[in-house]
Amino acid sequence: MKGYFHIKDEIRILGIDDSALISDTITIVGAFFRGGMWLDGVLRSDISRDGLDATTRIIEMVRQSKHFLQIRVIMLDGVTYGGFNPVDIIQLNEETNIPVIVLMRNLPDFEKIETALSHLPEKEKRMKIIKKAGNISKVITKDACNPVFIQCCGIKQELAARIVNISSTRSNIPEPLRVAHLIATGIVLGESRGKA
Amino acid sequence: MKGYFHIKDEIRILGIDDSALISDTITIVGAFFRGGMWLDGVLRSDISRDGLDATTRIIEMVRQSKHFLQIRVIMLDGVTYGGFNPVDIIQLNEETNIPVIVLMRNLPDFEKIETALSHLPEKEKRMKIIKKAGNISKVITKDACNPVFIQCCGIKQELAARIVNISSTRSNIPEPLRVAHLIATGIVLGESRGKA
Repeated sequence: MKGYFHIKDEIRILGIDDSALISDTITIVGAFFRGGMWLDGVLRSDISRDGLDATTRIIEMVRQSKHFLQIRVIMLDGVTYGGFNPVDIIQLNEETNIPVIVLMRNLPDFEKIETALSHLPEKEKRMKIIKKAGNISKVITKDACNPVFIQCCGIKQELAARIVNISSTRSNIPEPLRVAHLIATGIVLGESRGKA
Repeated sequence: MKGYFHIKDEIRILGIDDSALISDTITIVGAFFRGGMWLDGVLRSDISRDGLDATTRIIEMVRQSKHFLQIRVIMLDGVTYGGFNPVDIIQLNEETNIPVIVLMRNLPDFEKIETALSHLPEKEKRMKIIKKAGNISKVITKDACNPVFIQCCGIKQELAARIVNISSTRSNIPEPLRVAHLIATGIVLGESRGKA
């Protein structure tokens, strides 16, 4: 039944984050985790800054991975990577057959996003992809004062919330995303910084 | 008293590994860990393949890190990085004031190393640095059938063995080294592979 599956503590999750915007080509990093505990693999790819290739590049990276058939969930840190390069989570789900969970620290400010997009080509196309991510729900993980917000595709929000909870072992952010962030910033800047 | 300190489960360890030999500049990665559990930072630097700059580049990377004063132990995966670029662990210990533990899966074959070095300039200098790492002792971590071997500087071997044990939570290799290896190979090759 689509959207339903049993959740183990060691559910295999691929968390994907991008690096700092210091060039036209932005490194993205996938951290392949067992639940919130063990890093079992690292993937790398590149996308163009403010481009429109994030969706296809992520699909390629996932499908080419030796871990492809083991990945039970893909976690994204928001739906824009490398500036305003939007990820179409419906296409990502369809072309990998893996549920997608988008995690955000704050509710997106669509007005602000629209203003930012107005300086870029294909504004409507970008906005449409961003809006496709759909309903947003709040999830309390480690810290009731710091909830996170999620969107998802190919999985029910209640189950997605449970997976976000299971994998947030160290902070209020799931380990696969926290670690993908540390790797992406550390590799590109020489030392990791900031928060996923 | 030099060489003695209390060991907490969350002792902060910097594990350093190198990437595959696919160019003349070799990426090295530092994984800053709490014991065998949590990745709290990622460092990156470069050394030259078969060069003689590994010691100074690692010292720089460690000293420039925002985590410098928190690092209680540096763990190395053998004493040669980027091919046969040797790390002087006595100099590394002296110039960082941090104990150094070298970890090996197998006992080094010095005869084989000498043969390999004969194709490189400054063979004697390299061999001297490699030999400076001193006594080797065997440590059983997760798996009695797969012991590891260590050398150390600035710390007693018994204490070093305890730290290796505490931090080998996932396999017979300490997490800081296992993860540094995943990151270094994943970033350079596009996907992690092999063992630290």
